[in-house]
Amino acid sequence: MPHIHARANTSARTGRPATGLWLVGARGSVATTAALGLAALAGGHAAPTGCVTARPGLATAPMPDFEDLVIGGHDLSACPLPKRAEALADAGMLPSRLVTLTRDALEAADAEVRPGHDPARPEGSGQATAERLASDIVAFRERHGLDRVVVVDVASTEPLPDPLPEHDDVSLLTAALADPDRAPLPPSSLYAYAAILAGAPYAAFTPSACIALPALAQLATERGIPFAGQDGKTGQTWLRTVLAPAMAARNLRVLSWSGTNLLGGGDGATLADPDAVGSKLSSKSRGLRAVTGAGTTPLHIDYVPDLGDVKVAWDHVHVEGFLGSRLTLQTTWSAYDSMLAAPLVLDLARLLALAHAAGLSGPVPELGFFFKDPWGSDVHDAAAQERMLSDWVRRTAARVDAR
Amino acid sequence: MPHIHARANTSARTGRPATGLWLVGARGSVATTAALGLAALAGGHAAPTGCVTARPGLATAPMPDFEDLVIGGHDLSACPLPKRAEALADAGMLPSRLVTLTRDALEAADAEVRPGHDPARPEGSGQATAERLASDIVAFRERHGLDRVVVVDVASTEPLPDPLPEHDDVSLLTAALADPDRAPLPPSSLYAYAAILAGAPYAAFTPSACIALPALAQLATERGIPFAGQDGKTGQTWLRTVLAPAMAARNLRVLSWSGTNLLGGGDGATLADPDAVGSKLSSKSRGLRAVTGAGTTPLHIDYVPDLGDVKVAWDHVHVEGFLGSRLTLQTTWSAYDSMLAAPLVLDLARLLALAHAAGLSGPVPELGFFFKDPWGSDVHDAAAQERMLSDWVRRTAARVDAR
Amino acid sequence: MPHIHARANTSARTGRPATGLWLVGARGSVATTAALGLAALAGGHAAPTGCVTARPGLATAPMPDFEDLVIGGHDLSACPLPKRAEALADAGMLPSRLVTLTRDALEAADAEVRPGHDPARPEGSGQATAERLASDIVAFRERHGLDRVVVVDVASTEPLPDPLPEHDDVSLLTAALADPDRAPLPPSSLYAYAAILAGAPYAAFTPSACIALPALAQLATERGIPFAGQDGKTGQTWLRTVLAPAMAARNLRVLSWSGTNLLGGGDGATLADPDAVGSKLSSKSRGLRAVTGAGTTPLHIDYVPDLGDVKVAWDHVHVEGFLGSRLTLQTTWSAYDSMLAAPLVLDLARLLALAHAAGLSGPVPELGFFFKDPWGSDVHDAAAQERMLSDWVRRTAARVDAR
Amino acid sequence: MPHIHARANTSARTGRPATGLWLVGARGSVATTAALGLAALAGGHAAPTGCVTARPGLATAPMPDFEDLVIGGHDLSACPLPKRAEALADAGMLPSRLVTLTRDALEAADAEVRPGHDPARPEGSGQATAERLASDIVAFRERHGLDRVVVVDVASTEPLPDPLPEHDDVSLLTAALADPDRAPLPPSSLYAYAAILAGAPYAAFTPSACIALPALAQLATERGIPFAGQDGKTGQTWLRTVLAPAMAARNLRVLSWSGTNLLGGGDGATLADPDAVGSKLSSKSRGLRAVTGAGTTPLHIDYVPDLGDVKVAWDHVHVEGFLGSRLTLQTTWSAYDSMLAAPLVLDLARLLALAHAAGLSGPVPELGFFFKDPWGSDVHDAAAQERMLSDWVRRTAARVDAR
Ligand SMILES: NC(=O)c1ccc[n+]([C@@H]2O[C@H](COP(=O)([O-])OP(=O)(O)OC[C@H]3O[C@@H](n4cnc5c(N)ncnc54)[C@H](O)[C@@H]3O)[C@@H](O)[C@H]2O)c1
Ligand SMILES: NC(=O)c1ccc[n+]([C@@H]2O[C@H](COP(=O)([O-])OP(=O)(O)OC[C@H]3O[C@@H](n4cnc5c(N)ncnc54)[C@H](O)[C@@H]3O)[C@@H](O)[C@H]2O)c1
Ligand SMILES: NC(=O)c1ccc[n+]([C@@H]2O[C@H](COP(=O)([O-])OP(=O)(O)OC[C@H]3O[C@@H](n4cnc5c(N)ncnc54)[C@H](O)[C@@H]3O)[C@@H](O)[C@H]2O)c1
Ligand SMILES: NC(=O)c1ccc[n+]([C@@H]2O[C@H](COP(=O)([O-])OP(=O)(O)OC[C@H]3O[C@@H](n4cnc5c(N)ncnc54)[C@H](O)[C@@H]3O)[C@@H](O)[C@H]2O)c1
Ligand code: NA
Ligand code: NA
Repeated sequence: MPHIHARANTSARTGRPATGLWLVGARGSVATTAALGLAALAGGHAAPTGCVTARPGLATAPMPDFEDLVIGGHDLSACPLPKRAEALADAGMLPSRLVTLTRDALEAADAEVRPGHDPARPEGSGQATAERLASDIVAFRERHGLDRVVVVDVASTEPLPDPLPEHDDVSLLTAALADPDRAPLPPSSLYAYAAILAGAPYAAFTPSACIALPALAQLATERGIPFAGQDGKTGQTWLRTVLAPAMAARNLRVLSWSGTNLLGGGDGATLADPDAVGSKLSSKSRGLRAVTGAGTTPLHIDYVPDLGDVKVAWDHVHVEGFLGSRLTLQTTWSAYDSMLAAPLVLDLARLLALAHAAGLSGPVPELGFFFKDPWGSDVHDAAAQERMLSDWVRRTAARVDAR
Repeated sequence: MPHIHARANTSARTGRPATGLWLVGARGSVATTAALGLAALAGGHAAPTGCVTARPGLATAPMPDFEDLVIGGHDLSACPLPKRAEALADAGMLPSRLVTLTRDALEAADAEVRPGHDPARPEGSGQATAERLASDIVAFRERHGLDRVVVVDVASTEPLPDPLPEHDDVSLLTAALADPDRAPLPPSSLYAYAAILAGAPYAAFTPSACIALPALAQLATERGIPFAGQDGKTGQTWLRTVLAPAMAARNLRVLSWSGTNLLGGGDGATLADPDAVGSKLSSKSRGLRAVTGAGTTPLHIDYVPDLGDVKVAWDHVHVEGFLGSRLTLQTTWSAYDSMLAAPLVLDLARLLALAHAAGLSGPVPELGFFFKDPWGSDVHDAAAQERMLSDWVRRTAARVDAR
Repeated sequence: MPHIHARANTSARTGRPATGLWLVGARGSVATTAALGLAALAGGHAAPTGCVTARPGLATAPMPDFEDLVIGGHDLSACPLPKRAEALADAGMLPSRLVTLTRDALEAADAEVRPGHDPARPEGSGQATAERLASDIVAFRERHGLDRVVVVDVASTEPLPDPLPEHDDVSLLTAALADPDRAPLPPSSLYAYAAILAGAPYAAFTPSACIALPALAQLATERGIPFAGQDGKTGQTWLRTVLAPAMAARNLRVLSWSGTNLLGGGDGATLADPDAVGSKLSSKSRGLRAVTGAGTTPLHIDYVPDLGDVKVAWDHVHVEGFLGSRLTLQTTWSAYDSMLAAPLVLDLARLLALAHAAGLSGPVPELGFFFKDPWGSDVHDAAAQERMLSDWVRRTAARVDAR
Repeated sequence: MPHIHARANTSARTGRPATGLWLVGARGSVATTAALGLAALAGGHAAPTGCVTARPGLATAPMPDFEDLVIGGHDLSACPLPKRAEALADAGMLPSRLVTLTRDALEAADAEVRPGHDPARPEGSGQATAERLASDIVAFRERHGLDRVVVVDVASTEPLPDPLPEHDDVSLLTAALADPDRAPLPPSSLYAYAAILAGAPYAAFTPSACIALPALAQLATERGIPFAGQDGKTGQTWLRTVLAPAMAARNLRVLSWSGTNLLGGGDGATLADPDAVGSKLSSKSRGLRAVTGAGTTPLHIDYVPDLGDVKVAWDHVHVEGFLGSRLTLQTTWSAYDSMLAAPLVLDLARLLALAHAAGLSGPVPELGFFFKDPWGSDVHDAAAQERMLSDWVRRTAARVDAR
């Protein structure tokens, strides 16, 4: 079997060729959990529960192993990963035992975090900024002799940018990026552009603009970069995309699907900002309407700081059955949000490494399983997405093996 | 396209060849709802919401139309269908409007109900009893010039019979059935045997023994009878077989799945009997363990008469996620149980007519979608069952069309 | 025992002296349910379940009996009470049987409904309008020879008016009311003023401004009019004022109390209007903060038309216990809102008749049990309010008996 | 103010006269939490959240302060308190920080734990056993120069004993206790008898027989011993006794109250034993029937080991309202059970010390607030119990002050 690793370099860590995972928002809750979790898996301190790619059937594809992933990233925060991990342990989310066991790995990962781009502190033209960010990624790849680096955006949710003609046209965009007096791209899109410049496969775990602007998507596709998004589907939305198709298969008619989310934590504080909530809610509702056909879908996100990193979601589903009868389903979901997200971030790193090794470029619709707003696909049904994913892994693995 | 109807007779009702639906327990809640619903659909008073076979994709298969189904059956109860329907309307389950609109059809169906077999009142040997029951079915078929009659058991749940060698061996069974001093089969199995004698495709919507005894299954298969079961999967169990595979696809580990059912109604009163509950609970738990792998699955069925025909089910699912984290999902399901069951009974009539027209015999595992304890299949995953069903309908339709 | 009825007149209906119940919003859902319910109680077709004043202990106070209440009112709607009742029966809320049995009584009540005041169609000065409304009430009292008429506002929730100096000062208000070019009072307050002019005890079941403007409250008090309010406490808020004091008695510390309401129905449509929701939400939150001391109390009201007259409310209570431990309580409440409100409206009629007979004037804080925002009282604790109410009934009954 | 402390001795710990708290089941989950909590309160590391006696209004009564309580007890387990505390911290229930901070105090308390009575290992006659147990209590009192020792039974739930004439008659009982060949009392009652012999006020936090046998209750009363019970009311039952009276105050009619408890932990394992569950369920149901008048009250306790020390309780309340309408309330309660129980155990120590100082003897019905099955009282209404308790504290405090 031809090996997935194109180059001969090997990672300092395992002696095998390694893959980079570059996290935008590398010191956030999801990123810290992913970094600690990766160290725990690599160290044999935890099983890969919650990692889709560890499922029998998928696990044998020629993807990098967990212990062959090396973490780095960008962030604005100065709080080092080990300290953030301790705070998350004090809050009851991360097990203290694992924080102790992975301290060295977290320190090593933290040493690979570079200052992010703060829109409040311009760094010259957009092009210059993106080049600076891209050079951080390239240096990381070279420093560690990595086969490739997958960039995953897990930074705070941004407000959606106002539409501009530059977003749809590569040459207009290039011109505006070169102009130090203009800022045609929001930070998340600058990061996506940096990934393109660095030749790095890319995933958007946030609902921010990211690479979803047509000009950027076109550029990425032209330059042989596979990408996937958008907005990690981890809890309430996932549940909805499980339940709604099941109702449809029974020919039951969903009349309304009402929901409330309560969350504290970093993401909760961001989402307390109505602008940011706007992009999140519209991302959640798009999927819900598409998948249920319900006419009424009220949805709220409330910031409840005392819940810490727990997210509680209540759904009330009102359904019409036989002869106009009514039935109701209520669900209450309670989970540490980042604990759901982090393993999927590791999955995306492995799967986009696979896509890249297979020579794919452009959006990968078969990764829609991971996202609320799947790029390149209209399928929201979680079971259908799971089949698409499994089939794709098989096909793509064969393609890599055949190289 | 060759027509599904093998014989030239036409139904008095529509002028087209018709199919019989013979309900064991024809005056029960599910049966009454099915009869009224069929009349409402045939009369254009209601849409087939809740009928799986009315879904786009399935609806075009060469099955009998709703208006081509004619209802008859066996019951011990003397309460005529229109009266039972009124009672169900008073209880808030059936719309009064529809009871009024379908009164004639319900009276017609009730005229086709024959006395059932009461085990407390022996009718001679088992063979004699089954022949009497079979002759009721055959007379119904001939009276209406029906293409075929599908028998569906929707009678009260029985206690499971003690195992006997006769259940596993056709010749032992035949001998015992001939002996007026023995009663080797419980009523549900006598009805199943009668269906076999009448050459009628058969479905067990109840968890009773029915045709699930090896000797009966063998006989049916030999005589070209397709059959399906067992125990209609309508509410809580359906929900579980939707949710559990979705958890597994995320590589989440279900630790415990605890549940409580509250129900009034006729079925509730029966299930208040610990013996009957035994067969129901074991049927529900089998599926749950198989589908979740959870170690702990406590389950209760409580008779709460003031709930009438509503069933309320609460589930508490405790799940291990990434790094040993815990998450919980609670669901509360509230529905009129018979409103969920009745459209599936109509579906089974149509689908078994299709199976019979296609010349299938023996258990039809692809109908597992409809059952808690699917015969001939280990698949409990509702989404997987749905695909199996859709594929089977397509294949079987082609087979019928090719005849 | 001296009789509560001050005058010698007797009602046409029972031959005994009767009391009027004048409903502002007389053709709404709450009013229709109250009128139908009163007729059902008077006719012996239903028990007074849900009526607080029918509880043993309270029932013997010298209040008008249910059959001694006569209904009239104002509304803008032209849909007669019997028709509205039928619509509510079709929606599954009112029992059809009772609609049939009470048709005559509903027609009689409907004949006593007079056109309300539509702010979009001025009727001259505020004074003129109020006098017209008052004269309707007085004519009703005289037509039926009623001892007294209690006015209860159950009209649609209004937006809260902008504050004016006239609201705080009787003479400023009087002047402005006389001016045909000014409209110092919103409709609900014009109705309250009309009640004052008619000498009628008054209750505000809505969160609208009503009599809660200082100048009106002063006028009412001066003119010997007892009044009570505000905003009927029927479901979720009631539950909160039951649970929160119980937590406090255990010295448990509520951290957050988050809630969502889903409702269809007439009130739901009104509350879908953000202005109207504002007054309702602020009324609900005032009580919640006061009663729990929770720092975070997000609350939503969503209009979900398919729910019809059902209201579903979910609460999530996050509590700190011993040694910083956390506990959660979730409640889901599902009820026909008007079915909860209507018996309390009848209670208020009886209790305000008692207050009036006892010669009380001004706000009656002991009726705070019935309201989300109790006038004249800071007590929200439902159990404490219940004791205050019971004590007050005893004391006031003694006062009436002593007259 | 005359001091509550009758004797001049002072505790080694605070230099003030101290009170003993002798726990039967001293190394169990509730006891460990109480011991750790007491140390945390005494050391100023935690606020007395969850302690009823720390509420303003009650806190000033002449009871021993938290720091004046000294802990000892009996247990069969050999696992020392600090180790049990660590296990409870690992399970996520106790904060690790507090386990560290209170280690010395827990070691000191553990040194005061004496071997309990194991019915499987007879120690001679019942009298001899009880005297041995009593001497442990007396020695503890003298060793620490304690004013008094309050005994609280927090041992595992026992099966209820078969009724015997000895349970009702002091002289029969005395004779049987003297006979080494008889065992007329179950362990919990032997402990209660030992408390009587030691002159110690006594509380039964468990549903076991304890002092609830008439002969023992008579003896205690004769010997000047105040006692209270039975079966701590901490979670689901407490909630029911809050909600049900509130429904009654609204004249709503509870039709059924259905419940399920899921629990792991030590108590869960015990309750998995049908015999032990029997006593617990009957204790819970007695209160529920008494307080709601509901006809149907199914209740289950399921052992779900993966929940650890968390208890999850779901209730479904079906209620009849106005005109036969139906409403439902569902509650889900999730809490660490021992965290609810432990502060109440401390409260009982303080309140029974107060009762003893006031010279009370026999059952103290006003402590019914704390119990599912309140001795000497028919009041289950939590709000009414709270008033009875507050009034009693005031009265009893005055009595102590007047001594
Ligand atoms: N289940 C989940 O947790 C879940 C699901 C779907 C999507 N998401 C998304 O994942 C993202 C991260 O969530 P979180 O809980 O970790 O949030 P968080 O607030 O804990 O972390 C976000 C991190 O991004 C950093 N950041 C902000 N602006 C940045 C910038 N311009 N450049 C670089 N870094 C920047 C912050 O400093 C912070 O460290 C959010 O956008 C959230 O919407 C999370
Ligand atoms: N969602 C659902 O309603 C659902 C789901 C799965 C299975 N089922 C099963 O469907 C069956 C029917 O449920 P239901 O609610 O209609 O119950 P029901 O009690 O209303 O009706 C059962 C009928 O069977 C009749 N019956 C009893 N013994 C008989 C006999 N020996 N011969 C002929 N008739 C007999 C009774 O007289 C009655 O009319 C039950 O076994 C139930 O477990 C129902
Ligand atoms: N449980 C409850 O139902 C509950 C609880 C608390 C408060 N309330 C309040 O009771 C009120 C009535 O609720 P509902 O469900 O009956 O609403 P509804 O919409 O069914 O009825 C309101 C009625 O008021 C009438 N109306 C509107 N403006 C009027 C005016 N200017 N003059 C006279 N009539 C006017 C409407 O025509 C309608 O008939 C609402 O304000 C609601 O907030 C209801
Ligand atoms: N919220 C609550 O936790 C709550 C509420 C009401 C009642 N209770 C009751 O409190 C009791 C304790 O609960 P727990 O969770 O601490 O249970 P647990 O199992 O953790 O502790 C019980 C302790 O009793 C000890 N024990 C058993 N038999 C004994 C004997 N013969 N002599 C002395 N000690 C003995 C055991 O060794 C164990 O240490 C149970 O009876 C429970 O029903 C608890
Ligand atoms: Na099977
Ligand atoms: Na009692």
